[in-house]
This record gives sequence, structure tokens and C-alpha cells, in this order.
Amino acid sequence: MGVQNGSVWQFGTLAKGEKNLITDVPGVKVGHCTLQSGAVQTGVTAILPHGGNCFLEKCPAAAHVINGFGKSAGLVQVQELGTLETPIVLTNTLSVGTALTALVRHMLEGNPDIGTTTGTVNPVVMECNDGRLNDIRGLHVQETHVFAALDAAAEEFEEGAVGAGTGMCCYGHKGGIGSASRCVTLGEKTYTVGALVLSNFGALADLMIAGDPVGRRLAAEKEAPDRGSIIVILATDLPLSHRQLSRLARRAQNGIARTGTITGNGSGEIVLAFSTANCIPHYPAEHTLAVEILHEDYMDHAFRAAVEAVEESIVSSLLHAKTNEATEQKIRALSDSLK
Amino acid sequence: MGVQNGSVWQFGTLAKGEKNLITDVPGVKVGHCTLQSGAVQTGVTAILPHGGNCFLEKCPAAAHVINGFGKSAGLVQVQELGTLETPIVLTNTLSVGTALTALVRHMLEGNPDIGTTTGTVNPVVMECNDGRLNDIRGLHVQETHVFAALDAAAEEFEEGAVGAGTGMCCYGHKGGIGSASRCVTLGEKTYTVGALVLSNFGALADLMIAGDPVGRRLAAEKEAPDRGSIIVILATDLPLSHRQLSRLARRAQNGIARTGTITGNGSGEIVLAFSTANCIPHYPAEHTLAVEILHEDYMDHAFRAAVEAVEESIVSSLLHAKTNEATEQKIRALSDSLK
Amino acid sequence: MGVQNGSVWQFGTLAKGEKNLITDVPGVKVGHCTLQSGAVQTGVTAILPHGGNCFLEKCPAAAHVINGFGKSAGLVQVQELGTLETPIVLTNTLSVGTALTALVRHMLEGNPDIGTTTGTVNPVVMECNDGRLNDIRGLHVQETHVFAALDAAAEEFEEGAVGAGTGMCCYGHKGGIGSASRCVTLGEKTYTVGALVLSNFGALADLMIAGDPVGRRLAAEKEAPDRGSIIVILATDLPLSHRQLSRLARRAQNGIARTGTITGNGSGEIVLAFSTANCIPHYPAEHTLAVEILHEDYMDHAFRAAVEAVEESIVSSLLHAKTNEATEQKIRALSDSLK
Amino acid sequence: MGVQNGSVWQFGTLAKGEKNLITDVPGVKVGHCTLQSGAVQTGVTAILPHGGNCFLEKCPAAAHVINGFGKSAGLVQVQELGTLETPIVLTNTLSVGTALTALVRHMLEGNPDIGTTTGTVNPVVMECNDGRLNDIRGLHVQETHVFAALDAAAEEFEEGAVGAGTGMCCYGHKGGIGSASRCVTLGEKTYTVGALVLSNFGALADLMIAGDPVGRRLAAEKEAPDRGSIIVILATDLPLSHRQLSRLARRAQNGIARTGTITGNGSGEIVLAFSTANCIPHYPAEHTLAVEILHEDYMDHAFRAAVEAVEESIVSSLLHAKTNEATEQKIRALSDSLK
Repeated sequence: MGVQNGSVWQFGTLAKGEKNLITDVPGVKVGHCTLQSGAVQTGVTAILPHGGNCFLEKCPAAAHVINGFGKSAGLVQVQELGTLETPIVLTNTLSVGTALTALVRHMLEGNPDIGTTTGTVNPVVMECNDGRLNDIRGLHVQETHVFAALDAAAEEFEEGAVGAGTGMCCYGHKGGIGSASRCVTLGEKTYTVGALVLSNFGALADLMIAGDPVGRRLAAEKEAPDRGSIIVILATDLPLSHRQLSRLARRAQNGIARTGTITGNGSGEIVLAFSTANCIPHYPAEHTLAVEILHEDYMDHAFRAAVEAVEESIVSSLLHAKTNEATEQKIRALSDSLK
Repeated sequence: MGVQNGSVWQFGTLAKGEKNLITDVPGVKVGHCTLQSGAVQTGVTAILPHGGNCFLEKCPAAAHVINGFGKSAGLVQVQELGTLETPIVLTNTLSVGTALTALVRHMLEGNPDIGTTTGTVNPVVMECNDGRLNDIRGLHVQETHVFAALDAAAEEFEEGAVGAGTGMCCYGHKGGIGSASRCVTLGEKTYTVGALVLSNFGALADLMIAGDPVGRRLAAEKEAPDRGSIIVILATDLPLSHRQLSRLARRAQNGIARTGTITGNGSGEIVLAFSTANCIPHYPAEHTLAVEILHEDYMDHAFRAAVEAVEESIVSSLLHAKTNEATEQKIRALSDSLK
Repeated sequence: MGVQNGSVWQFGTLAKGEKNLITDVPGVKVGHCTLQSGAVQTGVTAILPHGGNCFLEKCPAAAHVINGFGKSAGLVQVQELGTLETPIVLTNTLSVGTALTALVRHMLEGNPDIGTTTGTVNPVVMECNDGRLNDIRGLHVQETHVFAALDAAAEEFEEGAVGAGTGMCCYGHKGGIGSASRCVTLGEKTYTVGALVLSNFGALADLMIAGDPVGRRLAAEKEAPDRGSIIVILATDLPLSHRQLSRLARRAQNGIARTGTITGNGSGEIVLAFSTANCIPHYPAEHTLAVEILHEDYMDHAFRAAVEAVEESIVSSLLHAKTNEATEQKIRALSDSLK
Repeated sequence: MGVQNGSVWQFGTLAKGEKNLITDVPGVKVGHCTLQSGAVQTGVTAILPHGGNCFLEKCPAAAHVINGFGKSAGLVQVQELGTLETPIVLTNTLSVGTALTALVRHMLEGNPDIGTTTGTVNPVVMECNDGRLNDIRGLHVQETHVFAALDAAAEEFEEGAVGAGTGMCCYGHKGGIGSASRCVTLGEKTYTVGALVLSNFGALADLMIAGDPVGRRLAAEKEAPDRGSIIVILATDLPLSHRQLSRLARRAQNGIARTGTITGNGSGEIVLAFSTANCIPHYPAEHTLAVEILHEDYMDHAFRAAVEAVEESIVSSLLHAKTNEATEQKIRALSDSLK
């Protein structure tokens, strides 16, 4: 976007993780599959919560809906059982079905007990509408693209207009994938809170970066309304319960709000938070599980980390999103064409 | 099942609709596509809320999760915006993705503006796990089956082991699709509340029919646990708001509980209620809409109708579910094999 | 009421606790203060979750609103923090304020740190409207009555028209306090789930007792509508998390529904569930707490226990509620007078 | 506080209401009763939604809990029935009981049918903990103070350390009552969205004013943690349904977040939004009501107004809160004394 990357913007006060990515949380991996060819500007991003079998070792998790103008799937069970049992797949709105089926196949392959000797599986797929830059009606995402994103998952990953972020717009510029992380030290232990966003929201005039209302200076008189959405993934190795992760997820709204948006009517803003501590076995050895849970008095550390990481992730998605003249023209044209 | 259909069971006191089906609500239609061949025992059921274009004329709607061990899709937006903008599709758990994609295609075909000049669309797909009788891992439901169910939608429809109900089990017997309706007279106007269930839950020992604990007499000593799920669709032409429909949806639990279940841990029990009154135009003519809303003092009539219709729908699904020796043996074998 | 106490009604299949009261859960105590004199027919009931200082040792807890036409206080914080930090006080609707103040004073007395060196305290007060039999406008409950109920708390306690139950009506008869308990054996350990209800709901014609529709036989042609409310307290020594207690609380609706009600518009039906296992210290010794949590696979045992105990508690409140000719006449008169 | 009032800070872009107060919404009135004497630094603020009888003409309303570490009362019924039927009373945390009883008495006086020929009433009382500056354990608020605040209600009212705001702290300075309003023009009609906050939250280092991180410059090295709470009241004459008001209420978090806070663990952040359009009669003339509802497409106007008004209300509470040397010392001392 038309602002400097080398700025001294400061997003909060906490120490950043080593890579300043969600993958600073040990075990978390991210992979992309990008579809970019003419009118096809879309893709898939997969977030793996840990290196093991997610179905056999479920992560404590919680979802939070800031504004439910969205079509994410799998959240009902996350809220009921408090666990995540598959990787999280991000894609465009109309490809959620394809991504669900692909994720089901992926899980069936790794777990012959699913649907036979045990129950089914709850795939989690989240989305934004990239229809402004992508031929979304073409349903171009195929199951193979989901497998490719899952296979590509690694600790290092690209930000910007890649994977599910390929066709996303944010604050009147190219948006997409952004990520950041923060460290939380309690006693002698240091934990990490990481965020990854799929940014596709905001009106340029509203854009604030680290308190600087850059949008006011950059915005044209006539502007497209605040449409689109944002998906936020929060990961941590702090030992948080479902309820605590639900509280953490709600802080994403503070991070989003710091970038200036009013959370518009049409914006699907949905958060999924998970912890890699205290994974729950699908097949329990005993009736009860011994777990370690953070005392509520220390939640503020996690909250601050989440707010800062989400704010920075959004800005990072803007700064990393490479664009070209064709895309820029298309984005500018939206101001006039969209009702 | 092994009980008499010609009984004098009485499910409440309200008058029944003409067909005693959800389609007694004017405009509502139901269609099935049944897949039944050897290990393939599954299908699709579609509920059309009205005869028009659901996207252009959205029905007030609300979802309620009784027990969220389920994979239904589309509920987040229903809760946020309070509207249903597609038919409701029911199928097996692992085919939700395919059904979503098919429903997207169906909506795209009828609405060239979706994904181009307007936003996207929120397909609603709900499910139960028919893996006890069906080769659910085979993902046998294809998009064409969804189109077939949509095309087959009519005021008259079959109950029992058809459509999405083909492979479902309920209280240790064959379950599936059941439906019933009740009349509500206010002043000089008569309204209808209709229910349709996809029943796939319950342990036989718990089964109660109109207060009669038949399950205790029928149940073997050793029985499969209360697994599976139930989806409840409530339709009405009463002018109810989203909030009121949400209240109505919560009464489904009373109707379900009357059949004896404890709402087991693994049961995805999810309700979707919609009204055909006060449909909301996608493209508004004015800033505001004139609507007529039921005064809260009269909600009890709707509540009683919903409780009675849900209870009878479940029993009806049991009574209509044709079975055969192979299926019966399979169900009986579950008592020993399931953990 | 006009039915036999010595019946062979069976409420489920699980073993009952020793006293068949909520106080079978070790540590739980219940106390009443009854105000009964002419038009004054009201009172206070206190439930103590354990014998220690509730503020310093908080119980994991969850609230669930079945129908929120009610004025209970303190639930917001229970849902956020997942803990109960005071006794629970039950009284009539318009005396919630007085009960709150009294409970605050009670807590301040035992905790000099509240409001000085630490934060405040979250008193939980729940209510039903006894205005049909009590001069509720007179605000007759005084703070001393709350202290008296707290002081009277014991393992043995009366059921029926006592304490907060003094002026309550249920299914067209005297209602009030009822209680029951069930045992849950997992491996070599036996746990208890106990219920206590304040019953003030239901239309006689709807009454079902253990599946027997006694209401249909007893009800007059013309009857008062289903008004009033029910409060349900669930206690257990099972090691359940806030999320699991929330799931447990939702099963109360099945128990209530088994007694025949449609959960009327005007019925405030609210559940509070707490566990005496894994109490959370107000002042933590470490950043994290070691806790033991039930694996989800075993929740069905707890669910069944809750459904059965709630159903029996309601019937028990009816059977224990002593009445007299004056009260009976007043109840009968309601059928004509109430709009 | 130590910043300039005469600044050119700009909180958004919408036109302000005439008084830039919540009372710009026609019919809304606000009254205070201030208790200020030595250690007693507390009070009561009442918000009257309209000039008529709130019980007979109920306002559509919705509550939203951002962070439920709070003791507000009355929210359960607001969420169920979607209406507000009393004035809203704000006071300190431990005086909620007294305020409830006073509000009950106030309503009983004006409505002889409550508790006799009709049901009871749902008083709404919201709170923050002023224990840092006030002897909160003394329970100094009396019922007469609540009546005084109700009686004092007017279109003009003071902001700052008055009424319920008397003893509140915000971002390390005096906080309390703040208010602002915004205009929304749709077609030829202009509506108003007004906000009133009771501010008692935030750590100084986090304070942002209109994007300016003033807190970073002002904060001492060692600072008290982000404790306390904020109550937000939103009023509008836009014809919004309960569901739409619930969406509006959620935007308060964006406004709050713009002032820099992370929404700390101990902060009770609760929003109540009501509309003065489409009031619901307690005694309906017909079974149905004719209402006019805003089309969802125009919600963004309301959202923007709410975000801006909440942000400015918080800053206004800071700017208006007169303080003195004693109070300042007390606030500074908190940094060292609080755990």
C-alpha cells in the first residue's frame, strides 16, 4: 500500500516472538496454496495447531463471533465441546463446501476409526469474500488445493496476497494474510500468543496505523463502503481453558478496532482461539484428566498480547500484500461501482 | 418399530393442520433424494421456506443449539442477521461440504448478482451422522442428489427412512424424517406451526410415547448408548421476529424431552425456526420496513404448538421408518459393537 | 396436592443419594427463613456450596437461561469467570434487591479485603414471583431474614412451602422447594449430582408425573395460564469445568419438560450449576492451577443424573407443599381472576 | 486531567447532536444524586428512556456483555423479551441491591397493577466499583438517593465526577459520567444516536485520545493495573429491533478500544442499548403490533454513530471530571498499593 514499510510504528509494548508470526507458538504451522491467473485470484491457507494427529489429540479452543455476517463452518461444535480436532482451513466464501469436503477426506485418511468405530469429525473452515478481485462465482478452489495448503504447512510462511489472502482487500488496498506474535513471561516461563488474520475489511478513510489516522490523508472523497470481513486465528501455548480462550478471542475486537474500523454491517468478523497446552485425548485412559490452567489473575498478559498481535497482523497484511497496476485499478474502480 | 401405529396416542391438545405436516404452513415445501443400495443408506432432504426467490425475499429466522455436538453450517449468519436466504438442506454429517457447494450453485444460478454486484449467500445445511447404517466414509452424496431433492420439493412428502433420513436410527429403531403441525387461532385468524425432524438419537430404554414409557418394556438389558443427533425445523406463518423465533426454537427441547431422551453428550441437537410472514427484501425500496409482529402475550400459543408438533414429529419418524431384517440386525448388533 | 405420596412413581433408573436431597453432595447446605402471616406468604432460602469461605475458595459454576422472563442477579459474572463466590440466595422477585444487600453485608463481614485491598464480590440471588399468594408489593423480606436463612443452613432441610417456596404455586397447586439427588459411579469412585428447585410454574392440565398425565384428569375446564417460573440449582462433586457445568445446566430443561410444561412465555426458568471439586483460590499461590477434569465421554452419566433429579425435585416440591383451605381457594380463584 | 480541553481532537466525522449529549435523543433524560463527603465519594445516576410510563410503554432494548466481570442486574430479561421497562439506574457495585429496591418502589408507586393484576417488573441497575476513592464497604447509597436521581432527570445534566461517576477512576485519572451524540440522516429524516458512559477503567499508559497516545507520555514507570469497569448506555430514535440494538451495542467495544484499553480481566464492560421508536404496550390492543424497522443495509450509519459517540463520551468523562489534590494523591498512591 502507499505507506512506508520502514516506519517506526509501534504496536504496543510487549516483546515480539522470534519470527513475529503465529508459528512462534511451538508446533503451529501454516501453509498456502495460491490460485492466481487472470480473473482467478483466490486460494487456501491452512493452519495446523500441532504436529500430531489433531483428531486424537484435540486442542482446547473457542470461537467468538464479533459480527456474524459470515459463513464459517465448524464453530458450533468448537463452542460445545471446547476443542479443535482438525487443522483450520481458510478460503473464499463460496468455496467453504469444497474445503470442508477436502478436510473431511484429509481426516478420514489419517483416522480409519472416524465414521466406523467412533463418531464423525468436525472440520473447521473459515472464509472471507474475495469477490471484488476474484471470479468467486467460478468456484475455482478444488480439493487438491486444500491438500496442497495442508501439505505446504511450515513454520515459515508468506504474508500478504497469498493463499486465502490472494484476492482480499483491506482498507481500500490489497489485504490478505498477516501475522504477528507476542511473548508473555510468567515467573520463569515464557509463553507466546500468536495471531494470524485474513483481512478483507475496512474503508480507507477509517484506517489508523498505530494511532496515526493515515486513512484520512489517503482517502478519496468518494469511497467504497466498509464491506468484507476479517478472520482472526489466535494460538497460544498458555494453558488456557475453553472459557479463557473465549475471553481471549473477544480481545481481538480491540486489536481490530485499533486499526480504525467501525465493524461494518457486512463484515464477517470471526475469531478462533486455541491453546496447544492440555490437549485432550480422543480415547481417554482414565475417567478424568489432569490439567494445568492459568489462574484468571494473569489473563491480562494474554489479553494484551492478543490485542497487540491482532493489530499488528492487520497492518502486516496490508504491508505485505504485493499488488500491481491492474489490481490497483480494480480496487479504485470499486469506489464508483459498488452500490 | 415394534409398536402399533393405530394407537390412540395423543400429543397435546391443539388442532392439527390439514396434512399434519410442516407443509401445512402455506408456501413450505419438502423434497427428498434417497440413496439406498447395499452399504449406501443415505440421502438429502430439502425444505423450501416459500415459493419465491429466498435470496431476494428472506425469511425471518433463528437458530438454537440445544447440544452443539454437530456440524451444521450457516447458523452464524442466521443468528446475526435474523434471516434465512436459501432453502435448508439436510444430509449426513460428512456430506455437509458437498451439500453446501450444491446449494451455492443452486443459488448462483437463480441470482446473477450474488458475488458480482451484491455480496455472497449464506447456505444452510444441517446434518446427522448415519454412519451406523450407511457407509458414511464413502461420501456418496453428490451435488446432483442435492439438486434432485430441491427439485422434488412439494407439499406432499414421505416421512421415515427417506431422503436425509434414510440411514438414521432413533431410540434403537429406524428413525429419519418425521413431521407434524398444529393450528393457532388468534381472533379471527388461524396460523400454523409446523415441525420437521431428522431423528437419529436416543436409547431405546428411555423412549416415551405420549407419556407411556414403552422403551422400558422393549429395551434389552444391554443397549447402545444414546448417540446420534436430531435436527428440528420449525416453520410458521405467525408474524414472529428473530427474537421470538429464537424463543420458539428453544421449546423444541421440551418436545424432544417428552420422548424420553436425556440429550446425550454426543447428540447434535440443533433447531432452525423461520417465519413466512414479514419477508425482508434483499433490495429495500425504503430505509425502513413496515412489519407486523405478534405481541409477546400471545407467544404461549406458538410455544404449545411447537412442543406438540416436535414431540409428534419424532414419534412419526419412528412409525414411518420402514425397515427390513438386515437393517434390524444391524441396529441390534450396535448394542454389542459400539464402545 | 390431590395425588398419593406413597406412589410407586419412578423417576429414572439411577441410584438416589442417601437423603435424596441436594445436600447429598458433600459440603452443600440449605437453610430457610419462612415468613407466613396473613397476606405475607414469602421467605428466603440459602444454598451454601461448601463449608468454607466461598469468596476465598470459589466453586466452578455456570448459569443457563431456559427462558429469561426473570430477575435473577449475579449471572453475568458467573458466566464470565466461571465461578460462584457467595452462597446462592432464593427469594421473591421484588425482594432481590434486599437479598443482594444482605448477601453483600454477609460477605463483607467475612472478608475484610473486599472493597479495600481486593475487588468487590458477586452476590447471586435468584427468584420467582409469589405474588399470587403473597403480598409481594409489601416488600416484606428484610435483610435479617436473609441472615437467618444463611444461619439455618444445614444438611437436613424441609421441602415444600418453606423459605423462598412459601408462596409459590406449581401446576395449579402449592409449589415451592423440592430436592433430589442421584449417584454416578465411575470406576471405583461414586459421585453425586443433586438438584434443588424453587417451583412456581405450570398449568395443571399439562402436569405429568413420571409419564402419567395426571393433569388432564385433575384440571378444570377453565384454568389459569402457565405463569410463574422455576429456579433450578444443580450441585455436584464431579470434577466439571465451567463449560461442562453449562452443558449440565442445559439438561435441566429435559427434567422440567418431563413434568409436562411447555415453558410458558412468562416463566423465568433459570439454572445455576456448580461443582465442589477444583475450587479456585482467590489468592493464587502460583500462576497456574493443577485441576482434574472429567473426560467428555463420561458426561452422559452426569446428564442422566441431572435430568432425573430435576424431574423428581419438581414433583417433590408439589408433594411436600402443605396447604390449607384458604390457600387452595386462592389458587382456585386465580383461574377466573387472572387475565 | 492534565490535558487540554480546548484541543482540536476529532472523534470521527459525523455531525454531533445539538447538546452533544445522550439527551439529544428526544425524550431521554438524565439525573444525578452525588454523595461527596470525606471518605464517601459515590452516587447515583438515572437515565429515563422517555417521558411516559416505561412499564406501560416498553422500549425495544438489548444488552451486550463485553467483559462480564460485573454485577449489573436486569439484563437477563432484557435479552429474553427485548424490552426495557424501567429507567436505568447506575451506582457503585455494592449498592446495586439498594438501587434495585428503590427502583422497584418507584415502579410500584406508578403502577398499582404490578404484583397484583399483572406480573412483576424488571428493574435495570448497572454499576462500577468506586472502591478506590469511595468507602464502598460503607454502603452509603440509600433509597432516597435513587429517588433523588430519578427526580432530577432532565435534558441538561452534568458530566464528570457526579452521580454514579463521583468516585470513579479512568486511565489513572478521575473518570465518571461522559456523554456525546451523533446525527444519522436517512433520506429526509435525521435520527440521533446518543451515548452515556460510566467510566472507571484503563491504565494510563494505554490512553489514546483521537489516536494520540497521550498515555505513553503521561504514564509513570510503575502503574496500577487496568482494573475497574465501564458501563455504556446507547439511546437512539432510529427504529431498531432488539436484534439490531444488540448489534449496535457490540460496536461500543470499538469505541472503547479506540481509547487504548485492552479490556482488562477485571473490567466489567457492559452495554445497554435502547430505542425510543416502536415502544411496546404492556397491554396490547390487538394480537399483533404494526412496527417500522430499519433495513439492515443502513445499519452502518448507526454503527458509526455509536462508535464515535462512545469514544468521545469516554474522553468527555475524563475532561469533565473535576478533581482536587487529595483525590489526585489517592489515585497516585494506588500505583504502589494495589497488588
